[in-house]
Amino acid sequence: MPDQLTDTSRLCVHTMTTKPLDLKEAIPAYEAAGVKGITLWREHVEPYGPKEVAKMLKDSGLKTVSLCRGGFFPATAGMAREQARTDNRKIIDEAAELGAPVVVLVCGAIPDLDLKTQRQQIAEAIHAIVPHAKGAGVKLAIEPLHPMYAGDRSAVTTMDQANNMILQLGSEQVGIAIDVYHVWWDHFLKAEIERATGTIMAFHVCDWRVPTRDMLNDRAVMGNGCIPINEIRGWVEKAGFHGFIEVEIFSDELWAMDQERYLKRIKNAYLKHV
Amino acid sequence: MPDQLTDTSRLCVHTMTTKPLDLKEAIPAYEAAGVKGITLWREHVEPYGPKEVAKMLKDSGLKTVSLCRGGFFPATAGMAREQARTDNRKIIDEAAELGAPVVVLVCGAIPDLDLKTQRQQIAEAIHAIVPHAKGAGVKLAIEPLHPMYAGDRSAVTTMDQANNMILQLGSEQVGIAIDVYHVWWDHFLKAEIERATGTIMAFHVCDWRVPTRDMLNDRAVMGNGCIPINEIRGWVEKAGFHGFIEVEIFSDELWAMDQERYLKRIKNAYLKHV
Repeated sequence: MPDQLTDTSRLCVHTMTTKPLDLKEAIPAYEAAGVKGITLWREHVEPYGPKEVAKMLKDSGLKTVSLCRGGFFPATAGMAREQARTDNRKIIDEAAELGAPVVVLVCGAIPDLDLKTQRQQIAEAIHAIVPHAKGAGVKLAIEPLHPMYAGDRSAVTTMDQANNMILQLGSEQVGIAIDVYHVWWDHFLKAEIERATGTIMAFHVCDWRVPTRDMLNDRAVMGNGCIPINEIRGWVEKAGFHGFIEVEIFSDELWAMDQERYLKRIKNAYLKHV
Repeated sequence: MPDQLTDTSRLCVHTMTTKPLDLKEAIPAYEAAGVKGITLWREHVEPYGPKEVAKMLKDSGLKTVSLCRGGFFPATAGMAREQARTDNRKIIDEAAELGAPVVVLVCGAIPDLDLKTQRQQIAEAIHAIVPHAKGAGVKLAIEPLHPMYAGDRSAVTTMDQANNMILQLGSEQVGIAIDVYHVWWDHFLKAEIERATGTIMAFHVCDWRVPTRDMLNDRAVMGNGCIPINEIRGWVEKAGFHGFIEVEIFSDELWAMDQERYLKRIKNAYLKHV
């Protein structure tokens, strides 16, 4: 197990973690809490547009880590699959304007197609948009999602599948986003993180609440759940990743509290449990 | 893909599927709907006791398929682990009295221990109760649960883990219960079902609703979700299992409807989508 973190130099927060805050409120609040990186959700960029947001962030002490999120590639109709690629090229352009080096891909899932076919569609779609990403200087991070989202959010449900897809695509432009919430249960996790050496583009943390009362919006602050976050961080660092550690928490309960106090709690939990 | 089922000779329903029905109501309702097998949940046995229930079922046209459920083995304290084994020996005795040939094991999970340690505790506990099960003439079926229950219900989250545990235990008394709800997302599913040849003791069906609104009680009737049930049945039968097909649905929505009408719906869905 790695030593506790002693400062916040690698601490990044997703704007969706503090969903109620407008970006103009979030930026100074993050800075006040000692946060050093920000991952932008498109919902929070939208009111200002990417150019204005890039300016706001340039004047701040925050580094832009990623843009969330592209993906949602599978569809039964070819037209819809083509539309998804067009949308993702726009998202890549948005990331370039924002100065975000990475777009996180939630690959998508629909109930009408088998998962294997969907994974083929996902790989084909990423392959198709790689040249655009390369031209824009933006990387694409495949995020395997928890199997409980296999019906409607991601046909890519394990590190194994993501690693294989990255191998298959064979492009430096494509790597993996590892979120402890999605992969903690996987008994191949340590081996798959090792296999991901050199392709890890993002590392997301939060905790798994017991009991979990909602499939989407009941994530916990680090230390308030059962995920061995510190151990997983050790594996990720052994695999050569020393970038930002991104706090991504969706929680109706936590969104209802004072967000400045919440950010202090996140910082303390980060230093103690990550 | 296997042909549609043409009769209900293999149709079994779990008493928890029709949770609002008392067992005295459930038995004639199942018979009226053409159901041929019944899997008893201890909650429905409790008001009458196993001896009385065995008599009720002997007089009915229903075959007793399994007793749900034993398990919940992991604990931090040795005393609690010993208590769990004692409880499970009682459940085995209950199954013997009921004439249920199989006890389904929901192996258990707690947030305080890592999953690997818990799986070791589970294997040790099953090993410890095997002689008792053998003496009682009752089989033990390990049911791998969906990874979304890894925090509080089962450290055994995949077919792979269950198959390995069965191999490790090496007892004819121990096999697997395959529930499509828990394993449908697994890209090793076909191979792991093949590997389970000769150890399949139960096959549970329902469907995965999109979106799923509740982690526990929002399962769907077969055909109303995204699980390729028919294809999975084909794999299970290729692996030599031709026993009862057990409908196990937990659903607040479906429990609220007229349960006799619901049973007709289950029968129709069984013939069309299983």
